[in-house]
Amino acid sequence: MLTKNLITATILLVVSGSTQVHAQIIHSPSRKLTLQFQLSQAGEPTYQLRYGRKPVVLPSRLAVLLQDQPGFDKGFTVAKVDSSSHDDTWAPVWGEVKQIRNHYQELAVTVQQAAEQNRRLVLRFRLFDDGLGFRYEFPEQDKLKYFTVSDEQTEFNLPANHKTFWIPGDYDSNEYTYSTTRLSAVNTTPITPIEKRAAPNRVQTPLMLKSDDGLYINIHEAALVNYPAMMLNVNTQTFGLSSQLVPGATGAKAYLQTPEHTPWRTIVVADNAPAILASKLILNLNEPSKIAETGWIQPQKFVGVWWEMHVNKSKWSYSDASNLKLSGTDWASLKPHGRHGANTANVKRYIDFAAKHGLQSVLVEGWNVGWEDWYRNWKEEVFDFVTPYPDFDVEELHRYAAAKNVKLIMHHETSASVTNYERRMGAAYRFMKEHGYDAVKTGYVGLIIPRGEHHDGQWMVNHFNHAAEKMAENRIMVDMHESVRPTGLHRTYPNWLANEAARGNEFNAWGTGNPPEHETILPFTRLMGGPMDYTPGIFQIKLEGWNPAENKGKQVHTTLAKQLALYVTMYSPLQMAADLPEAYEQRLDAFQFIKDVPVDWDDTHILAAEPGDHLTIARKAKGKDEWYLGSITDEQARQQPVQLDFLTPGTRYVATIYADGKRADWEKNPMAYQIRKVTVTSKSALKLQLASGGGAAVSFKPVVR
Amino acid sequence: MLTKNLITATILLVVSGSTQVHAQIIHSPSRKLTLQFQLSQAGEPTYQLRYGRKPVVLPSRLAVLLQDQPGFDKGFTVAKVDSSSHDDTWAPVWGEVKQIRNHYQELAVTVQQAAEQNRRLVLRFRLFDDGLGFRYEFPEQDKLKYFTVSDEQTEFNLPANHKTFWIPGDYDSNEYTYSTTRLSAVNTTPITPIEKRAAPNRVQTPLMLKSDDGLYINIHEAALVNYPAMMLNVNTQTFGLSSQLVPGATGAKAYLQTPEHTPWRTIVVADNAPAILASKLILNLNEPSKIAETGWIQPQKFVGVWWEMHVNKSKWSYSDASNLKLSGTDWASLKPHGRHGANTANVKRYIDFAAKHGLQSVLVEGWNVGWEDWYRNWKEEVFDFVTPYPDFDVEELHRYAAAKNVKLIMHHETSASVTNYERRMGAAYRFMKEHGYDAVKTGYVGLIIPRGEHHDGQWMVNHFNHAAEKMAENRIMVDMHESVRPTGLHRTYPNWLANEAARGNEFNAWGTGNPPEHETILPFTRLMGGPMDYTPGIFQIKLEGWNPAENKGKQVHTTLAKQLALYVTMYSPLQMAADLPEAYEQRLDAFQFIKDVPVDWDDTHILAAEPGDHLTIARKAKGKDEWYLGSITDEQARQQPVQLDFLTPGTRYVATIYADGKRADWEKNPMAYQIRKVTVTSKSALKLQLASGGGAAVSFKPVVR
Repeated sequence: MLTKNLITATILLVVSGSTQVHAQIIHSPSRKLTLQFQLSQAGEPTYQLRYGRKPVVLPSRLAVLLQDQPGFDKGFTVAKVDSSSHDDTWAPVWGEVKQIRNHYQELAVTVQQAAEQNRRLVLRFRLFDDGLGFRYEFPEQDKLKYFTVSDEQTEFNLPANHKTFWIPGDYDSNEYTYSTTRLSAVNTTPITPIEKRAAPNRVQTPLMLKSDDGLYINIHEAALVNYPAMMLNVNTQTFGLSSQLVPGATGAKAYLQTPEHTPWRTIVVADNAPAILASKLILNLNEPSKIAETGWIQPQKFVGVWWEMHVNKSKWSYSDASNLKLSGTDWASLKPHGRHGANTANVKRYIDFAAKHGLQSVLVEGWNVGWEDWYRNWKEEVFDFVTPYPDFDVEELHRYAAAKNVKLIMHHETSASVTNYERRMGAAYRFMKEHGYDAVKTGYVGLIIPRGEHHDGQWMVNHFNHAAEKMAENRIMVDMHESVRPTGLHRTYPNWLANEAARGNEFNAWGTGNPPEHETILPFTRLMGGPMDYTPGIFQIKLEGWNPAENKGKQVHTTLAKQLALYVTMYSPLQMAADLPEAYEQRLDAFQFIKDVPVDWDDTHILAAEPGDHLTIARKAKGKDEWYLGSITDEQARQQPVQLDFLTPGTRYVATIYADGKRADWEKNPMAYQIRKVTVTSKSALKLQLASGGGAAVSFKPVVR
Repeated sequence: MLTKNLITATILLVVSGSTQVHAQIIHSPSRKLTLQFQLSQAGEPTYQLRYGRKPVVLPSRLAVLLQDQPGFDKGFTVAKVDSSSHDDTWAPVWGEVKQIRNHYQELAVTVQQAAEQNRRLVLRFRLFDDGLGFRYEFPEQDKLKYFTVSDEQTEFNLPANHKTFWIPGDYDSNEYTYSTTRLSAVNTTPITPIEKRAAPNRVQTPLMLKSDDGLYINIHEAALVNYPAMMLNVNTQTFGLSSQLVPGATGAKAYLQTPEHTPWRTIVVADNAPAILASKLILNLNEPSKIAETGWIQPQKFVGVWWEMHVNKSKWSYSDASNLKLSGTDWASLKPHGRHGANTANVKRYIDFAAKHGLQSVLVEGWNVGWEDWYRNWKEEVFDFVTPYPDFDVEELHRYAAAKNVKLIMHHETSASVTNYERRMGAAYRFMKEHGYDAVKTGYVGLIIPRGEHHDGQWMVNHFNHAAEKMAENRIMVDMHESVRPTGLHRTYPNWLANEAARGNEFNAWGTGNPPEHETILPFTRLMGGPMDYTPGIFQIKLEGWNPAENKGKQVHTTLAKQLALYVTMYSPLQMAADLPEAYEQRLDAFQFIKDVPVDWDDTHILAAEPGDHLTIARKAKGKDEWYLGSITDEQARQQPVQLDFLTPGTRYVATIYADGKRADWEKNPMAYQIRKVTVTSKSALKLQLASGGGAAVSFKPVVR
C-alpha cells in the first residue's frame, strides 16, 4: 500500500530565512531515525542521519559527476518535494523468514540546475526503522538522454573514529580476510592483493562499523543494476567515507540513458548487533521477483567432486599436458595423469552417497576440457562448456543420477573470459537441459575479458545480471563464484541462489586460511547482500589426513562442531556438504546434523551476536515445527547461554546438541565433538560451551509421542 | 607440391668472416626479385628486397617486442635455415580468375637468443615473382607459452621519396578519400577524423607507392588472424615506414599463445601498374577454404531498400521517437512518421523489380526495431536482430519473395556494440534461417563495445573472423561493413563475399563525396585485400532529382557510364544495383549492362592502369565465352585505346558499348550516355572516349548465328 501525498509543507523544517537553505526532514515509521536533506549555500545536495539524538551520518554531500558536461553536484534549487509512507508485507520465494515487512517513509526531492538549462535530478530517500536507503534518479529530460558518469561523490561523513571491519577495495576480488581497526588505521598497503592492489584507504562494502556510543552501522548498496559496484575511500583524519565507483575499461564509471537511477546506497543502523543481521532493508529495496512461476526453484544441499581437489587427492585436470588450445587439441588422445577427480566412477560414488543420505545434488568440477592451463593466462578461449573429458560419461551419469533421484550440478568456470562465455551460453544451457542439469555453479577466476573491465564494474555487473536472467529463462538455478558481491538481487531473480564473492572455506585448504573470527564477521559484511556458498561441513579438519605430503600444516581454522553450526549461522538456500563422502562416513553421527538441517526457513531469531566475536542464530524449518540453532565463536572459548523461548510454547522437543568435545580447540584438537540429546520446552535454557574457534549446532524436533 | 630441403649451404652468401653477419639470399622463381636476410652486429634480424638491380626495401629491421619480458629484437644468432620452393595451382570458389598459381621460393630462418635461454623465433619469407610475404613465427618452446605483444617494429625502409596514395591511420575507420603525396609530405593533421584522430604520420595499408624509377609497390598484410591490423608510421625525412599495430583496450597489441605467428607482411612489386592489380600474392598467402561444401555460396547481384534512405526519400527509422530502450519499448505503439523505407509494400516493390530483371536478391535495411536512436550513443543494447518494425511483415515477405524466386538479404547493424551482437548471434542466425535469409550485411558504425577496443584491434579482428566462421556453420554468406579491411581471408571463408572497409559510393550522398579519382585508387589500395561492396550503379547522379530540398548540391562524382564501368573495375562477387528501381526504369537501356554483367569470372585482364588516373579491365564470364570491360578515368577526360586480343580468336562478338555522352562531364552533365553496338573480333580495337569523371562499359557476346 502506497500512500502518496504532498505533505512537504507540514514536515518541512525551515532552518533559515534564506530560500537556498531549505531542509526537509523525515522520520522513520517509529521515529527511531531522522533524515535531513538540505541544499548548501552553493546549492549542493546534502543529507544527514540521526539515530534518536545520536548522529549516524553528519552532513554529507551527494554528487554525481558527468563526462563532457557539468556535474550534478552544485547550483541546485529545490523544484519539488514529495513525501509518502509505505507499509506492506511480502513473501520471499525462499529465505530466512516467511514474510517480510516493507515499512518506510519516503522523501523524493527534485532539484534543478538553473545554469544548466534546468537540468533535473531526483534524490529519493527511504527511511526505515532499521536504516536508510537513497539513490540518485535521472529523469528523462530534454537536456539529458545519454550520459556518462565520470564519478559519484556520495559522502558518508561519520561523526567519530569508529571501529570497522574492512577488506581492501580490490576491483576484482572480495576474497580477503577482514581487518578490524579504527577508521583512522585503515591501510590496505601491507595486504597482498588478490587481483589489483587497492588504493591504501579504499575498502569494500558491505562495510561494518561500530561506534563507541553503541551504534552498529552497515554501509552497502541494494539492487546493483547497470552501474558499477561502490567502494569507499576512507579519510583516516576526518572519518569521512566517500564513494568510489569501479571504473570500466575507458576509466569512465557508467554509461547511462535516462530515465535511469543508481543503486540504493544503504545504511543499516541499530543499537545492537543482532538487529543488523535481522534487517531486511536491502531486500526491501530490491524489485519483486521477475520470475512468475517459481516452483522449479529448489533450495538444496549438495555434495561435490570439489574438496578432494583442494586437498590434493585429485585434480581438475585430466592430463599433465600444458599450453593447449581449445580448438585444435585432440582431448581424447591426451595421456591421462590418472588423478582426474571428475571421472565417471568417482562421480557415481558421490551420487550414491547423496542418494543414501537424502542430499539433493552433486556438483562436479573439472568435468569439461580446458583445465590443463586454464588459469591466469588472460586467454579468451579456455572452456567450451559442452565437451566432457574422455573419462566423464555425461550420458551414463545423467541416467545413473536420475535413477537415484539425484541431480547433477553443472560447473561453468569461465576463467573470467566472459566474452567467450557469453558467446557459448546458448549452447551451454541447451547442453545442461539436454543432460538433466537444472543448476549451475559459475566461476570467474582471473582478469576479465573484455580486457580492461573489472569484476565489479558496470559491464560485468550487467553480465552477472544478464546471466541470471538468461538462466531464469532456461529454468536454471545459479551459484556464482568470483562475481560482484550481492546486493539483494536474489529477491528479483530467486533462481540466483547464492554467490561466493568473499573468502570461502576453500581458503582453509591453502596458505594461511581463514582465521577463527572470519565466520563471525561475514554475516555482518558480505552476507548483508545475500546468501553465500561458503561450503561448510569440513570434518577432516587437519588436511594432512588426506595427503600428508602436500597438505602439511594445513587445516580448517575451526572445530568440527563449528562446521556444523555454520549451516545455521551462514544463511544460504544452497548449502554444500563440502567434505569427502569418506570423511562423513567415518562420523555419521555428526553428519546427521547436515542431513537434518534445512535450507529454507519460516523464521529466524538472531539470539546473540558481536561481529568478530561470536554469533548465535535459531531458525525454524520451512513448514514444520523444527528449529535449528548454530552458535559460533572466534578464537576465544566462551559459554553461550541460550533461552529457548523461540520454541512453540507447550511443545516438548528433543534437542540434539552437537558440541565441541571437552578439550576441543580449533588448532590443537579440532575434531573432538560430543553429541547429546535433551528434552526441552520454550521455557528451557541451554548453556553451550564453545571451544576456541569452536561452535555448537542444535536441532530441536518435537517429541514424538 | 612442396619440395622441402636444406639448401642453406648452397644459397648462403657469406658477406663477412664474422659468424654474426651471415646473409641468406633467395631469388623469386624467375629471379626478378631478390631477398636478403641478415643479422646485424647486434644480432638484429634485417631484410632487404631488390627488383632486378633496383632496391625496393633497403635493409630494414624485424622486431617484435613483448610485455614484461625481453623482446624478440636483438641478441639473435641463426640456429637454422630452411629453404624450399613451391609451385602449385588452385581454384578459388569464386573470383577474378579460374585458377591461381602459387609459385614461390621460401626461406625460413630460425634465430635464437642465447641471453634469453635460447628463446627462438622463426622468420619465414615467401618470395614470389610479384612480391614478398614474410611473417614472424613463435614456435612452442619451454620459455614461451603465453605472451603479450607490446609492439611490432617491422621496418620497410624505402630508398627514395616515393609518390604514395594514403589515408590516415584511424584505428576505427577506413572511410577516407586518398591523399596523393610524396612520402615527405604525408601529414594527416588537416584531415577530419572519422572516429579517432590518427597520429600525423600514420597511414593505413594497403599502401600504394610509386617510385621515380618506375616501380609500383604495394604494402599490406595477408591472413590477418588473431592479431591487430598493421598500420604504418611514415618517417617523412628518411622515407622509412614502420609497423604500428592497433592497440587493444589495455594498450597491449596482441595476447598470444605458442605456437602462433603474425599475419604475413606483404610487399607486392612490379614495374607496371596492371601487374599490381593482377597479383594473387595475398590470396596465395591465405589458407585454403575451411568450408568443405561450398555449393550454397552464390555470387550475386542485388537491389536494396537503402539508397532511398541516403537520398532522403525515406528513413531507416519508423518513428520520430527518441531516447528509446530496446527492452521496455512498446514498438507497436510508436507513432509512425510515415517515411519508413522498410515497409512491406515498398519491399515488395523491390522484390518485383529484382524478379523482373533477374537480380538474385533484395537487401532491406531498417527492418528491425532500434533505429530511432541507434547512432553514436556508445550504448550496448540497440538492436536485437529479430524484432521487425510493425510495418515489416517478415512472414509475408518470406512467402512473397520465395514465390518470385528472389532472396531477401538480412541486415545486422550492430552499431559497434559487438558484445550485444555476439550474445544474440545464435538467435539472429536461427531467425534468418527460419525466414529464408541466406546472406547478411553487417555493420559496425560507431565506437566499439567492449569499450576501449578498436575496429582494427586483435579482439575485433577475432570477432570478424569468428562471425564469418559462425555464419559459415549456418550456411550464411556475409558482407561486412565497417569491418577491418580485408587481407584475403575470403579464400579461407568463401562465404565472406565482401567488405566495405573503405569509403563507398554512399559518401556521394553526403558532404563532399568521393572525388572522381577515388575509384581509380581503390583497386590499388583497399581492394588488394579483397572484394568491396562499393554499391555502384547510381543513375540519378544529381541527387536533387530525389529530394530537391534536402539534397541540394549533392551528387555522385562520376558520369552514369562510369557507374556501369565500376561493375567490372571494382571486383566483387556481390554487386549492388544501388539506385532506386524508378531510376533504372527510366533508363532500362543502360540498366541492361547491370543485368548482363556477371559477378564471377574465369579470367581477368588488366588492360591499362595508373593509380589516381585511370583503369581499364576486361573479364571473362564464368563458364561462358562472354567478356565484359570497364574503363574509368579520374577528372581528366581521356581516350582509352583497347586492343581486343583477349577475345577468343576466330569468334565474332557483338560489343555493346555504354559510353559517356558527347558532352558528358561528371559535374556539369553526368547523366549523358550513349549506347552503341559493333561487331568485333580478337583483332579489333576500340577507342573509348572517357569524359571528365567518366567511363565506359562494354559487353562482348558471341554473335548468334
